[in-house]
Amino acid sequence: MARGRRPTEEVRRDVLAAAGELLLAEGVRGFTVEEVARRSGASKMTIYKLWPSKGTLALEGYFTTVESALEFPDTGDVEADLRHQLHAFVSLLTATKAGPTMAELIGLAQTDPELRAAFLRTYSSPRRKLAVQRMEKALAEGQLRDGLDPESVVDQLWGACYHRLLIPDLPIDHAFADTLIDNLFNGINRPVSRRRPGASRPR
Amino acid sequence: MARGRRPTEEVRRDVLAAAGELLLAEGVRGFTVEEVARRSGASKMTIYKLWPSKGTLALEGYFTTVESALEFPDTGDVEADLRHQLHAFVSLLTATKAGPTMAELIGLAQTDPELRAAFLRTYSSPRRKLAVQRMEKALAEGQLRDGLDPESVVDQLWGACYHRLLIPDLPIDHAFADTLIDNLFNGINRPVSRRRPGASRPR
Repeated sequence: MARGRRPTEEVRRDVLAAAGELLLAEGVRGFTVEEVARRSGASKMTIYKLWPSKGTLALEGYFTTVESALEFPDTGDVEADLRHQLHAFVSLLTATKAGPTMAELIGLAQTDPELRAAFLRTYSSPRRKLAVQRMEKALAEGQLRDGLDPESVVDQLWGACYHRLLIPDLPIDHAFADTLIDNLFNGINRPVSRRRPGASRPR
Repeated sequence: MARGRRPTEEVRRDVLAAAGELLLAEGVRGFTVEEVARRSGASKMTIYKLWPSKGTLALEGYFTTVESALEFPDTGDVEADLRHQLHAFVSLLTATKAGPTMAELIGLAQTDPELRAAFLRTYSSPRRKLAVQRMEKALAEGQLRDGLDPESVVDQLWGACYHRLLIPDLPIDHAFADTLIDNLFNGINRPVSRRRPGASRPR
């Protein structure tokens, strides 16, 4: 089917959208360049010219597709904004094929150095950066404790969900998302005012 | 080499010790039942009689071998005790083959339902229980916030480390272990006394 020449940026966008939708719908096993070509109207040759490997295409398509769903709001209240985004992440993991797809990709990445590098570069590192940027703004506004390392919060919110995704002793659900936020914003120890004499206190 | 008959419990213990040491020394790829048999002095037939699969043997041996290194102290100060244990866990992950071995096992478990079930049953679930027990004692002693879900703390301490192990955007080190504990025990928001009027407050 001759569509005439489309600008490369338009082709890129269509291919990425098709790739992300395909991955979310069919998972890793159903992801083929043939099907991405069919859905996007681009030729396989064009796709291979723009993406070095199927893995890179899948990851970049996935990142693009989930980007708007995983955006960080900025209402001025960092606790509310992180909570909102974490719930969106939990919905994505549990209500679409994103959960099993991510689990399988991360699993394969443990014994495939190229896939691991692509995953870090194309997906996890840019997503980490978006979370850190939102927290850095809150730090500058005095909403978070001075000296807080925002990277560590990424591991204790989204990382805690990945832990349950990859080692599924317990389920991921919305109550879990709230608990993770509460633990960090309220602290897990007994409030100072109600603490008994002699018990340890926060430093 | 005739050793005479040893009691089954003694054979079990020797085989598990040999299996755990072999896994920590050689990783998943170097782990064979032949080598466990050679190191423990038990026959392959005996080993297969006691363990249904190589994976179960490896995981149970690993659990047994790291059990004493990962014990929870009970000094009466739960923050100090969790901190101590988390540092021991970080040492194990970074100073032995435990890190890459766990990463590879968890990776394989994503596409191998039998290995996944064995991992949950033989390793992660019993380790989770030990952490929860230590925190339940602290809850009963009034050292942790009423209503705290200790399971979620497992995901925010050890799970946060597994996140960096499996998605290695950033390294695991002892400073990270301290930060994880500090975030939970101090909270990540600005202390109430220094909070500016109008800023969000903990609930």
